[in-house]
Amino acid sequence: MKMWDGRFSKPSDALMEQFHNSLPFDKTMIEEDIDGSIAWARALKNIGIFSQQELDEVTNGLKGILDDFRHGEITFLHSDEDVHMAVERLLVERVGDAAARLHTGRSRNDQVATDTRMYVKKKLIALQSLVEELQRACVIRAQSDIEIIIPGYTHLQQAQPILLAHYWMSFFFALQREKSRIEHAIEITDIMPLGSGAMAGSGFNLDRDKLASDLGFSSVSYNSIDGVAARDFILESLSALASCAILISRYAEDIIIWSSKEFSFVEIDDAWSTGSSMMPQKKNPDSVELIRGKCGRFVGNYMRFATTCKGVGLTYYKDLQEDKEPIFDSLYQMEMILKVLTQVLLTIKVKNESIQKNLDPFLIATDLADYLVKKGMPFRQAHKVVGKIVGFSVESGIALDKLGYQKLSEFSELYTKDVEQLFVWETAVNNRDIPGGTARSSVDKQVEIALSMLQQ
Amino acid sequence: MKMWDGRFSKPSDALMEQFHNSLPFDKTMIEEDIDGSIAWARALKNIGIFSQQELDEVTNGLKGILDDFRHGEITFLHSDEDVHMAVERLLVERVGDAAARLHTGRSRNDQVATDTRMYVKKKLIALQSLVEELQRACVIRAQSDIEIIIPGYTHLQQAQPILLAHYWMSFFFALQREKSRIEHAIEITDIMPLGSGAMAGSGFNLDRDKLASDLGFSSVSYNSIDGVAARDFILESLSALASCAILISRYAEDIIIWSSKEFSFVEIDDAWSTGSSMMPQKKNPDSVELIRGKCGRFVGNYMRFATTCKGVGLTYYKDLQEDKEPIFDSLYQMEMILKVLTQVLLTIKVKNESIQKNLDPFLIATDLADYLVKKGMPFRQAHKVVGKIVGFSVESGIALDKLGYQKLSEFSELYTKDVEQLFVWETAVNNRDIPGGTARSSVDKQVEIALSMLQQ
Amino acid sequence: MKMWDGRFSKPSDALMEQFHNSLPFDKTMIEEDIDGSIAWARALKNIGIFSQQELDEVTNGLKGILDDFRHGEITFLHSDEDVHMAVERLLVERVGDAAARLHTGRSRNDQVATDTRMYVKKKLIALQSLVEELQRACVIRAQSDIEIIIPGYTHLQQAQPILLAHYWMSFFFALQREKSRIEHAIEITDIMPLGSGAMAGSGFNLDRDKLASDLGFSSVSYNSIDGVAARDFILESLSALASCAILISRYAEDIIIWSSKEFSFVEIDDAWSTGSSMMPQKKNPDSVELIRGKCGRFVGNYMRFATTCKGVGLTYYKDLQEDKEPIFDSLYQMEMILKVLTQVLLTIKVKNESIQKNLDPFLIATDLADYLVKKGMPFRQAHKVVGKIVGFSVESGIALDKLGYQKLSEFSELYTKDVEQLFVWETAVNNRDIPGGTARSSVDKQVEIALSMLQQ
Amino acid sequence: MKMWDGRFSKPSDALMEQFHNSLPFDKTMIEEDIDGSIAWARALKNIGIFSQQELDEVTNGLKGILDDFRHGEITFLHSDEDVHMAVERLLVERVGDAAARLHTGRSRNDQVATDTRMYVKKKLIALQSLVEELQRACVIRAQSDIEIIIPGYTHLQQAQPILLAHYWMSFFFALQREKSRIEHAIEITDIMPLGSGAMAGSGFNLDRDKLASDLGFSSVSYNSIDGVAARDFILESLSALASCAILISRYAEDIIIWSSKEFSFVEIDDAWSTGSSMMPQKKNPDSVELIRGKCGRFVGNYMRFATTCKGVGLTYYKDLQEDKEPIFDSLYQMEMILKVLTQVLLTIKVKNESIQKNLDPFLIATDLADYLVKKGMPFRQAHKVVGKIVGFSVESGIALDKLGYQKLSEFSELYTKDVEQLFVWETAVNNRDIPGGTARSSVDKQVEIALSMLQQ
Repeated sequence: MKMWDGRFSKPSDALMEQFHNSLPFDKTMIEEDIDGSIAWARALKNIGIFSQQELDEVTNGLKGILDDFRHGEITFLHSDEDVHMAVERLLVERVGDAAARLHTGRSRNDQVATDTRMYVKKKLIALQSLVEELQRACVIRAQSDIEIIIPGYTHLQQAQPILLAHYWMSFFFALQREKSRIEHAIEITDIMPLGSGAMAGSGFNLDRDKLASDLGFSSVSYNSIDGVAARDFILESLSALASCAILISRYAEDIIIWSSKEFSFVEIDDAWSTGSSMMPQKKNPDSVELIRGKCGRFVGNYMRFATTCKGVGLTYYKDLQEDKEPIFDSLYQMEMILKVLTQVLLTIKVKNESIQKNLDPFLIATDLADYLVKKGMPFRQAHKVVGKIVGFSVESGIALDKLGYQKLSEFSELYTKDVEQLFVWETAVNNRDIPGGTARSSVDKQVEIALSMLQQ
Repeated sequence: MKMWDGRFSKPSDALMEQFHNSLPFDKTMIEEDIDGSIAWARALKNIGIFSQQELDEVTNGLKGILDDFRHGEITFLHSDEDVHMAVERLLVERVGDAAARLHTGRSRNDQVATDTRMYVKKKLIALQSLVEELQRACVIRAQSDIEIIIPGYTHLQQAQPILLAHYWMSFFFALQREKSRIEHAIEITDIMPLGSGAMAGSGFNLDRDKLASDLGFSSVSYNSIDGVAARDFILESLSALASCAILISRYAEDIIIWSSKEFSFVEIDDAWSTGSSMMPQKKNPDSVELIRGKCGRFVGNYMRFATTCKGVGLTYYKDLQEDKEPIFDSLYQMEMILKVLTQVLLTIKVKNESIQKNLDPFLIATDLADYLVKKGMPFRQAHKVVGKIVGFSVESGIALDKLGYQKLSEFSELYTKDVEQLFVWETAVNNRDIPGGTARSSVDKQVEIALSMLQQ
Repeated sequence: MKMWDGRFSKPSDALMEQFHNSLPFDKTMIEEDIDGSIAWARALKNIGIFSQQELDEVTNGLKGILDDFRHGEITFLHSDEDVHMAVERLLVERVGDAAARLHTGRSRNDQVATDTRMYVKKKLIALQSLVEELQRACVIRAQSDIEIIIPGYTHLQQAQPILLAHYWMSFFFALQREKSRIEHAIEITDIMPLGSGAMAGSGFNLDRDKLASDLGFSSVSYNSIDGVAARDFILESLSALASCAILISRYAEDIIIWSSKEFSFVEIDDAWSTGSSMMPQKKNPDSVELIRGKCGRFVGNYMRFATTCKGVGLTYYKDLQEDKEPIFDSLYQMEMILKVLTQVLLTIKVKNESIQKNLDPFLIATDLADYLVKKGMPFRQAHKVVGKIVGFSVESGIALDKLGYQKLSEFSELYTKDVEQLFVWETAVNNRDIPGGTARSSVDKQVEIALSMLQQ
Repeated sequence: MKMWDGRFSKPSDALMEQFHNSLPFDKTMIEEDIDGSIAWARALKNIGIFSQQELDEVTNGLKGILDDFRHGEITFLHSDEDVHMAVERLLVERVGDAAARLHTGRSRNDQVATDTRMYVKKKLIALQSLVEELQRACVIRAQSDIEIIIPGYTHLQQAQPILLAHYWMSFFFALQREKSRIEHAIEITDIMPLGSGAMAGSGFNLDRDKLASDLGFSSVSYNSIDGVAARDFILESLSALASCAILISRYAEDIIIWSSKEFSFVEIDDAWSTGSSMMPQKKNPDSVELIRGKCGRFVGNYMRFATTCKGVGLTYYKDLQEDKEPIFDSLYQMEMILKVLTQVLLTIKVKNESIQKNLDPFLIATDLADYLVKKGMPFRQAHKVVGKIVGFSVESGIALDKLGYQKLSEFSELYTKDVEQLFVWETAVNNRDIPGGTARSSVDKQVEIALSMLQQ
């Protein structure tokens, strides 16, 4: 027997029951469903639908169901088509008549939208903290790697020397924007649709503001049609998480490359690596590869629900039931990724010695040009002069830092003895003391800013 | 203890084990894994790695594991990182030493690629049959609805009268192409990578052709790097299923619209509808809405794995482990959709009476123009003449079929008495007896072609 | 001759020049490029790279180029690989030596990031205004359609009667959230990367805050690596526009369905419809269909760049050049859609008469149940009672509102004479006077809130 | 004046004309449109609509338009809403009355589907040849690099030694499957919808088989509704090209990594590289990065049109006009990518010396285990033994190939003097002489197979 089959002359086909059953995934939000129902019961009591005694029965009944669920003592039936109907059935079995009043003025349409928003909000808030943990790991790394100079890359070609700490801080600041996107998604999610009924508004004028405050919502939806139909909070959450995953995939790529024997910049701790079933020598940065690979599912989950929503008219259609699996998956997977990556960063071994061996004197080429500019040569001309010097170095096989100022002065008279100081890595790094630059002072300042951001 | 940690000094972190564990989803293909291992053992025996007795032990051990798995008698451990390692661990526990020889010359890299191909191929073949079932339902509908004339739509505006059977047959022929795409995906999947080892080819020269024939593969991969790295068979399968889902979503849309009170063309059987928790009068075409909505997950699953694959270098990276969940989901969901939709079509009630009421005389406008053309008027001029007639009908409120030939002749002298025969729906329909057209004879021919396609 | 080929021994292949040339699309932001260069020149003057006279020459030269571009008097060369190089080449030709100093301390990496942010920000701000225009159209419609009662739908089945104005207001409030997303995208975009150099920070310590203020940026990037590598502002903008397009596609779907002869709720104005090349009677809601269809490109543009960004390591790679086409397309197309849809709404003809004919007495079923609840019956029981009544109505062919209270009382004694008042549509509508509901008072309140939102 | 506005009382708004105008992109297929019209005119002549003289006029008129278009002598008007209407307008201007008969029995719905299929088919065939060119480049590389041994990678960790030729051949065979997908897309595209009319079939019974043969189609569509509504040929083409782009992105990734100073395996020719506007030393593998980055647009184009198609009911809706831009873009971009990549491969410099320096003795670890297996030790045990050896080598700092057989024998007595031969790279490579393996003989065989495939 269904709650809704008064007008039906035939039961659902068994395959249909299996097909449209959402319990396997929507039971994830049983706590929110029960909290929502308790608040709803209280609101019904305030307009006289429930007596105090009935309210107590219903409230206790619901709490008991949640308790039993947590202890694995609930058995769901094939005919429980979703978590809402399952809870209502259980409640009827436990408290009888009073339960039959609970759905007064409420529809599954506003109920499911409310539950989902509560669940998503809770999880997004938890993710914000995990993003902060990852940011903290970036700062810790920056502090401990502050003396290490690595090649900065563009196009995976060595470009200019930078502090490794500068690199970690770039991740910190990018994550700050990801956090801001999650924050905005929370704001959009934090609107209570309850009271919207099936779509026209509840036929019972309950106090929606009181309900919202009971359930921890910051505001109530302005329009019942929108309240029931809107799924933009899901899309935005999916998009915010996809953005975060894309960012992370870029840093994961670097770490994978840096873990290669050829780069040998870092070594991922054994606890976060795996070996090969066939090749005994292998130690693979599996954790970070999987993090990179999982980027696809965040993008895919967004795509999936975007496609589902496209062109679905108002107000509620069953199509929208497809909202939960992708968002639940993205929320769970991001939690895992953030936790794992934080640990990977905290335990990663930086192989300073092999990094230093790898620094290429060509990294100083820009400084050689800037030197000329500072002595008055137009930049384009300086760029060409240094291009010729580089060409000479390549052909002659004499490294840039071994040419000596006299050889350099053959390319431009502006080069004098002091040019040789440019080849001290620290000089090159500290020359970029512009705000946001890689100079020690500039990176120290970044760390300071970061710490104050984390304290807010 | 891992199979691969000989060179590791520290165990995996518990979170890492949870994070990269694929057993929850890859156990789906335990049958393929075990079949693959049995064939592999046989091949090893042929090159002398196993004695006959050891082969028997291993084979029986593996069969026993599968049997126990099917009876729910296998307990997996947290440390079983995937189905391959789990099966190997269980085998070691059961047959000891012989098991330790099984992985000779094999890598999880070629093993997982082989298992996945076997599983996907099996499921795609099953889906082909289900597509045919749906096609059969189209033919059955076409045969039973052959007398029913409905408005054909473009832009959801009534365009020209058609046979409802003609509409169903359009679905049949479109599905034929979906079947062809699944066929091609099967061909691409039906290539055995086993023997590719980790990536360079197995160090033991087993008879790969024999292996392929044992495992039901049509051919073996030409190159071990490609054998291990390739995931295009997953992408193509995902794309073929997405294509099918998109097609189905278009027909689902029509059925949803046709189920509205305003159209009232069809009524979905109670067994495939649901009601409302709040509104007692509601009967909703939930099954078809869900089918439409699920289109998103097929597209999303494709997208998900496409994004994962993008830019992943050769040969194997852990990123590729993300291949299974999307393809398993798409295969399962398409199975459900095809089964449900077939039943929906077979049981749908066509409401001929309300359809007939709805046929708009404007549907004949093209025929009115064609009439003039057949009497020698250039089409563009005829189109304009009928445009004026339509305008007059709208303004005057006199339906097109009530104007009479005399009124029509005021717009063009070419109209004579016989023009009125155009307003018999059957005439209009049967005028389109071009191959592929909506005339009864043409649709009969389509049914004939369809039946012969199904027999191939 | 390239600006960068000092170390090259061979020119680019002609096909390569064509392949990586971005001028065809990045010339769109020539104004931003020139404004950026003028500000940069001023900053260089402040640190002594330019004399006042050189600054004037360069500034006038750049202004002249922009002026000439606007008058179509610029000829680009095949060798101009992007807008930055094209402008620099032109400037060299016009002012000579001074031009050669302009690129001092700057890289195309920070230049292009700066230009793109300026352009995207400008366009997003313009779109916010256009969203507001569309919101205004919703309010205007709500005000003018405030008396019209339509069926509210779920599952495209008539659910409950609502005010058409209530429907339009749902669009208004949903758009408010879209505006908020665009606002957040603007915030993220409004950060100046200039001064980041190639990636390590400029070697010349210019005043970045002054530069930001010159160029209208609210803040400067905290880290040069992030400044150059970040493209999250593009992704977020694409996502915000995709979200907006998805929302719009849902309303477009309804309008297309409402424009069908079967629904006949609205008629799109001739100015926004088209006809058929073949069928003289056709009037198609093409504008709204195209709006719905274009939803795909917004989602696709997001997808496109998300896939491009995935796994691209730091800092700059040529892959990132693929950012411009999708965002430019989404910005332009959204502008068109918003403008067109605003006009469509403002000019749409609401066909009240046919709407009223279409209202189905079953719309009152929930009210019949609520009536019983208000008299003390538990809702689940009331739902079943009304289910039976509905079933009787369907079978007997007697419309719900024609049953009369005596017949109704056979199903429940609680029904008395006053139940018949429920069948006055206005009563049903006004019963839902909960905040956000469809009652006239509630919708009036929504309009009031909307107007105050628009004034902020 | 429009061709279709007979019943309209008001012209289109100028913004509407701009919005729905498809001429800017669909004029790309003017040749197909004109060829289609010439064939159509001939078919009309055969059923008596045209006289021979009119046919000649129309044919010559159409040819003249194409000719003028190719010489840039056609001026389109704002009111030309698409290429079909533009051509018809021009034809009317040139040949008058006869032109007005051309649209007899045809609709833009079947016309545009026919044109698009012709265009897409033509371009896909061209792409097949370009894929073959790229395959040829792989074979050429394999032949010239047949002596070069590189580390084979999994997880970007050195795994086993392979022939570089073996790597190139993996690309060859993967491309063979891409070609097969394009082939299938061609088959699906190669079906003529002409004669389907607006959707019900043409009212004039022309010879469709003759038309198909005139236009080079292999078959005609079986059902007019499907003929007009189907866009799966676009989706499949987009998907086939996306698949190809994803494959290419994986090889591009490797080439980018191999071009780094740290790997130094290859150097892209100057003609296919670019430099930096700021850093004089830089030589960037821009061509390959852009190829990798462009992968996103293929996936995005697929996504874009998949989303558009989802849930669009039958038969034609304006939404479908969005099919052209993505497929045109994917076709064009793939052409460029294939041409560029072919040249990049043909001209790439392989740096054998630095590759050889980079080969790590650990690459032999699997062989060390296989050695034990061949002497009777179970593989799992052998894997552990070698794991210990590897661990010893790492800790002691003595390279694997420097341990000597005596040291090895301390780990297992099975190691005897002959084990040292394993450390000759050629031995390790040639040990993998299984079909598909990396042994010289096996790779030679692959080249042979490849050449015979290219000759088919």
